[in-house]
Amino acid sequence: MARNRAAIILAAGKGTRMKSDLPKVMHKVAGRPMVDWSIDLAQRVGCSRIVVIAHPSQDILINHVTTTLGIDCLAYQDPPMGTGHAVRCAEEALTGFEGDLVVLYGDSPLVPAEAIEDLFDSLKGGAAIGVLGFDAEEPGLYGRLITSGGGDLEAIVEAREANPEQLAVRLCNSGVMAGGAETMFRLLQNVTNENAKGEYYLTDLVALARGEGLTCKAVRCDEEDLIGCDSKADLAEAEAIFQVRCRKAMMAEGVTLVAPDTVWFSHDTVLEPDVLVEPNVVFGPGVHVQSGAVIRAFSHLEGAKVGPVSSVGPYARLRPGAELSKGVFIGNFVEVKNTHLGEGAKASHLSYLGDGQVGANVNIGAGTIFCNYDGFLKYQTTIGDGAFIGSNSSLVAPIEIGDGAIVGSGTVVTKNVPSDALAVARTRQTEYEGWAANFRERKAAEKAAKKKG
Amino acid sequence: MARNRAAIILAAGKGTRMKSDLPKVMHKVAGRPMVDWSIDLAQRVGCSRIVVIAHPSQDILINHVTTTLGIDCLAYQDPPMGTGHAVRCAEEALTGFEGDLVVLYGDSPLVPAEAIEDLFDSLKGGAAIGVLGFDAEEPGLYGRLITSGGGDLEAIVEAREANPEQLAVRLCNSGVMAGGAETMFRLLQNVTNENAKGEYYLTDLVALARGEGLTCKAVRCDEEDLIGCDSKADLAEAEAIFQVRCRKAMMAEGVTLVAPDTVWFSHDTVLEPDVLVEPNVVFGPGVHVQSGAVIRAFSHLEGAKVGPVSSVGPYARLRPGAELSKGVFIGNFVEVKNTHLGEGAKASHLSYLGDGQVGANVNIGAGTIFCNYDGFLKYQTTIGDGAFIGSNSSLVAPIEIGDGAIVGSGTVVTKNVPSDALAVARTRQTEYEGWAANFRERKAAEKAAKKKG
Amino acid sequence: MARNRAAIILAAGKGTRMKSDLPKVMHKVAGRPMVDWSIDLAQRVGCSRIVVIAHPSQDILINHVTTTLGIDCLAYQDPPMGTGHAVRCAEEALTGFEGDLVVLYGDSPLVPAEAIEDLFDSLKGGAAIGVLGFDAEEPGLYGRLITSGGGDLEAIVEAREANPEQLAVRLCNSGVMAGGAETMFRLLQNVTNENAKGEYYLTDLVALARGEGLTCKAVRCDEEDLIGCDSKADLAEAEAIFQVRCRKAMMAEGVTLVAPDTVWFSHDTVLEPDVLVEPNVVFGPGVHVQSGAVIRAFSHLEGAKVGPVSSVGPYARLRPGAELSKGVFIGNFVEVKNTHLGEGAKASHLSYLGDGQVGANVNIGAGTIFCNYDGFLKYQTTIGDGAFIGSNSSLVAPIEIGDGAIVGSGTVVTKNVPSDALAVARTRQTEYEGWAANFRERKAAEKAAKKKG
Repeated sequence: MARNRAAIILAAGKGTRMKSDLPKVMHKVAGRPMVDWSIDLAQRVGCSRIVVIAHPSQDILINHVTTTLGIDCLAYQDPPMGTGHAVRCAEEALTGFEGDLVVLYGDSPLVPAEAIEDLFDSLKGGAAIGVLGFDAEEPGLYGRLITSGGGDLEAIVEAREANPEQLAVRLCNSGVMAGGAETMFRLLQNVTNENAKGEYYLTDLVALARGEGLTCKAVRCDEEDLIGCDSKADLAEAEAIFQVRCRKAMMAEGVTLVAPDTVWFSHDTVLEPDVLVEPNVVFGPGVHVQSGAVIRAFSHLEGAKVGPVSSVGPYARLRPGAELSKGVFIGNFVEVKNTHLGEGAKASHLSYLGDGQVGANVNIGAGTIFCNYDGFLKYQTTIGDGAFIGSNSSLVAPIEIGDGAIVGSGTVVTKNVPSDALAVARTRQTEYEGWAANFRERKAAEKAAKKKG
Repeated sequence: MARNRAAIILAAGKGTRMKSDLPKVMHKVAGRPMVDWSIDLAQRVGCSRIVVIAHPSQDILINHVTTTLGIDCLAYQDPPMGTGHAVRCAEEALTGFEGDLVVLYGDSPLVPAEAIEDLFDSLKGGAAIGVLGFDAEEPGLYGRLITSGGGDLEAIVEAREANPEQLAVRLCNSGVMAGGAETMFRLLQNVTNENAKGEYYLTDLVALARGEGLTCKAVRCDEEDLIGCDSKADLAEAEAIFQVRCRKAMMAEGVTLVAPDTVWFSHDTVLEPDVLVEPNVVFGPGVHVQSGAVIRAFSHLEGAKVGPVSSVGPYARLRPGAELSKGVFIGNFVEVKNTHLGEGAKASHLSYLGDGQVGANVNIGAGTIFCNYDGFLKYQTTIGDGAFIGSNSSLVAPIEIGDGAIVGSGTVVTKNVPSDALAVARTRQTEYEGWAANFRERKAAEKAAKKKG
Repeated sequence: MARNRAAIILAAGKGTRMKSDLPKVMHKVAGRPMVDWSIDLAQRVGCSRIVVIAHPSQDILINHVTTTLGIDCLAYQDPPMGTGHAVRCAEEALTGFEGDLVVLYGDSPLVPAEAIEDLFDSLKGGAAIGVLGFDAEEPGLYGRLITSGGGDLEAIVEAREANPEQLAVRLCNSGVMAGGAETMFRLLQNVTNENAKGEYYLTDLVALARGEGLTCKAVRCDEEDLIGCDSKADLAEAEAIFQVRCRKAMMAEGVTLVAPDTVWFSHDTVLEPDVLVEPNVVFGPGVHVQSGAVIRAFSHLEGAKVGPVSSVGPYARLRPGAELSKGVFIGNFVEVKNTHLGEGAKASHLSYLGDGQVGANVNIGAGTIFCNYDGFLKYQTTIGDGAFIGSNSSLVAPIEIGDGAIVGSGTVVTKNVPSDALAVARTRQTEYEGWAANFRERKAAEKAAKKKG
């Protein structure tokens, strides 16, 4: 029978180098706060209990975590006194938990679930403590993982305390650690802060475990996967790593990216095979595009569904709640928000479709606005199948346009339109002969006078 | 006298790794299907006969080729039994042809004409068969071209059958081959499928020619030029190679690219010297921009002509048939389709100009729409020299606005406007004093009630 | 007491390789003509006199420099006879100047002030001539700076006249030189044009100074800093160097750049900490964004101020004179020019705000146009606090909308609107039952006939 799993996510760090009022772990990678990546990781490896360690001053983080995970998943560290101290702060929240524990970091968004599974597997294999390591390109100041011939982890040695032989080791400590909950909390009681910084280090658990004759294991992971984000430059680097991988994976699945380096995905973007994406497209969170659809250049999608063989853009913006059925056409400078478009519907130019229900084969003319807001509340616009909305029309919601109805160009529609009717609100066009010539003469004189003056 | 030339283009491959319903060679590089690159190459080296080998199931490809080249330029390979078999499938279509033959691939869009000329030259120099090779960065599994001291091609050796000395050879086989038509078809009859895959290999011609004491030659070409596209990642790579070269060539000719890596060209883009292109611009097929014009950031052009010292964008979209004379100004969020603009005409903001003829020095106000479509047919809008179209106007086509006429803001123009006249269709503006204050009170209460409920 | 400083900026070169009608030094890097970078550099190191050497045919350059610096800061070189000749051409303009002189180049935009300070310092340290050098990646044809063991500059040796030992030197001559004005002009009298090109070389000053037993010094600078731009490719490279540095500096100061490689800055862009910039944003000159503001994807800003916690874009264009107070919201396809928006004002979609004064908490509906231009002059639109402008409205300037007023959708506002009033100009909506059905029948027949015909 599988052992219970829990995760402690360290997130109390100030992140001074971010130079930001936002708590460090709330900064986003691929459209998702970093702490959510860690929470998601814990959930994907089956952690039944997750505790996020925050600082009591981090209101935004605290609200976010309690909303996402519930109030009992939060513990406070105040003041922060090192990673060992942080983990101890979670002990009370985990009262009654029996099983394996993994310590994660709220600023390491790209750790793969496989690596954590490997770590838990090392415990099944008999290790008391498992530590995630990586072969560093430039080991520099990272702590070194010293392993025996047989692969057991003998010690974690800080770079500044390492001898030349140890410094030559490239396997470095990521800080991610797993162990039995009971063992870890028990050993933590013996961790001291007798060091230069006066902090309690989680890494000391390895020496304490070895001192008791317990086995420790090092588990390898790619360095790129373990990137920690302390600065805006780190964030941008993590984002870039994610994007490069995501583009590659998309293409392998049959998505056509004309210019992969110019397409930006979110963590949850779903593009089906034979979707074609032109250069310079941004996918915010929550987008699903079905097969055969084309997303043209300079489009921006967020929280939107695009049906098969639909065409979007260039310069189309689909906002949350935009739902395009099959063969829908959304053209340039068109914004769609919280609106469903039926099969074959078209809005080709310069329109705003907000809070609407648009039938099949509806044609929405250039410059059409769904007037969904009166300054206080938002209202629905409903357009029946096959209706034709003339250019520069304003549909003042709440409003219903019947099936097959036609709205004349420039009409402000304030009353519902029956099916198959024409609705217009138009004044007779008048021509004033010669007026323009006179006007020009007058204005030219005025302009000349202004210049002189 | 020059010998006749013919080309066989192998295009029957399924392209499974593309994960696409579209035939492999129909995927585009630089805005043009790959097979068109090969057809164009054959035409540029003067092939009087071109035969594309397709699979009978590839309707889209077959339609495309017969439309482009004519029905007699197609031959079928069903089922595909190797490259040698593919070439044999073209024999009937080439009945009566005497001269030199080159075998090209429909998935290799970047082969330069110079390389094919070199290949034909090797035949003039006495070779029976010429093979295009490249010095591979990583030879890996490519077939090796084994040459004699004097430069003759002795054999093509598959990597898995090569000895260590042969494996050390970096000159690899591209598959592109030329020879006298008679010789090639004659030798092909002796090619067998007695190999692991049970296929007829075109490469076997070299051994057969050597067996008859005929001379073969290897001709070198850059590896990048020979990229073959089997996957979406390959397509993106070929696209990137094209773009890097094109940007470099544009700048060498005097085009200013502020941020070359963000500008995307098509195979036929023409920009004259002293054109300035800002970051993030996409050129679809068929664009010609004249000297001194500026294409501002985030613009998208396709099938458009831009006259000298015109200014386009930012966020301008020129679609096929957009023709800008000298000194035209197209501003942000403006779409122009199938419309000619006279010298000095301006459409600065948020407009759609479709199916129009716009005179010199016309000023088109923000939010103007050419209402060119009634749901069934498209109609023309004609605007005379020096006319002024007020903002948010709708010009319901077919319509003619005379020289020097003025259209008042917000007018829906449904009748032609004489020269120098003012046209308006406007209702008297009415103010309801205090109405807004009452409305706000009422709505605030409604909103509060809704929140409670 | 500090010695006086003067700069001579060589800018007369034709720049043939630019293939442009624009004088070479007028081409821009980071939104600023290259010559301005050099002028700014001279000013930053405290030069009280600056002389730009132009060719008399370069009208655009001459106008630009005299407008920027004044007429006495220009000297002509006609015909150009080398760098030594160019500097001599400045002698008359510097009549009466006593102090140190630095020779700069109008096509080297990235030279840092620190390097010029170091150069002047070398003069304080006793050198007669100081020369700026760089360790070249590939020294190739650059002149070599031959230094003594003690660091003194012994000679500048042209690559084609260098012996193997000298060729092995990587320290190369940038051409930037400083010295006492009197010494330099005196030595220049002895420079001859007895060389292959028949030109007077500034570099000869070093040999002449050494001949008099004067000390010369070489001062090191990064090669990248000294890039000279002779071609469009060079320009693009200088731009790229600037952008990479600027992005890094921005992130270090706490700016969040989701995709740094896709954000383009100008030389003077100011973004405060905790500004977030999404992918694909272009900052033209003169932009200041305050803390907490978000600049969304595909936005374009130029000469604009964005207040704290404001939100701009996606697809927003802020033009010169756009001033957003705190918490302003500018949404997609909105253009703002020469308009101030009060705290909390919103223009969310498809609008043009030109020449306006918008009060606090104003809501500007989708498709609103400030009609600021009558073909001759531009006029102001003023909107009071808390007003609500309905969608697709046209505000015909000059116009004033009072505090708390409401403008109905689709209204063309031609008269001022009192505070708290509703203004509408609307015709009664009429429905013609069945009209649309008849229309469709008629049109379908027409379309079919057209196809047959």
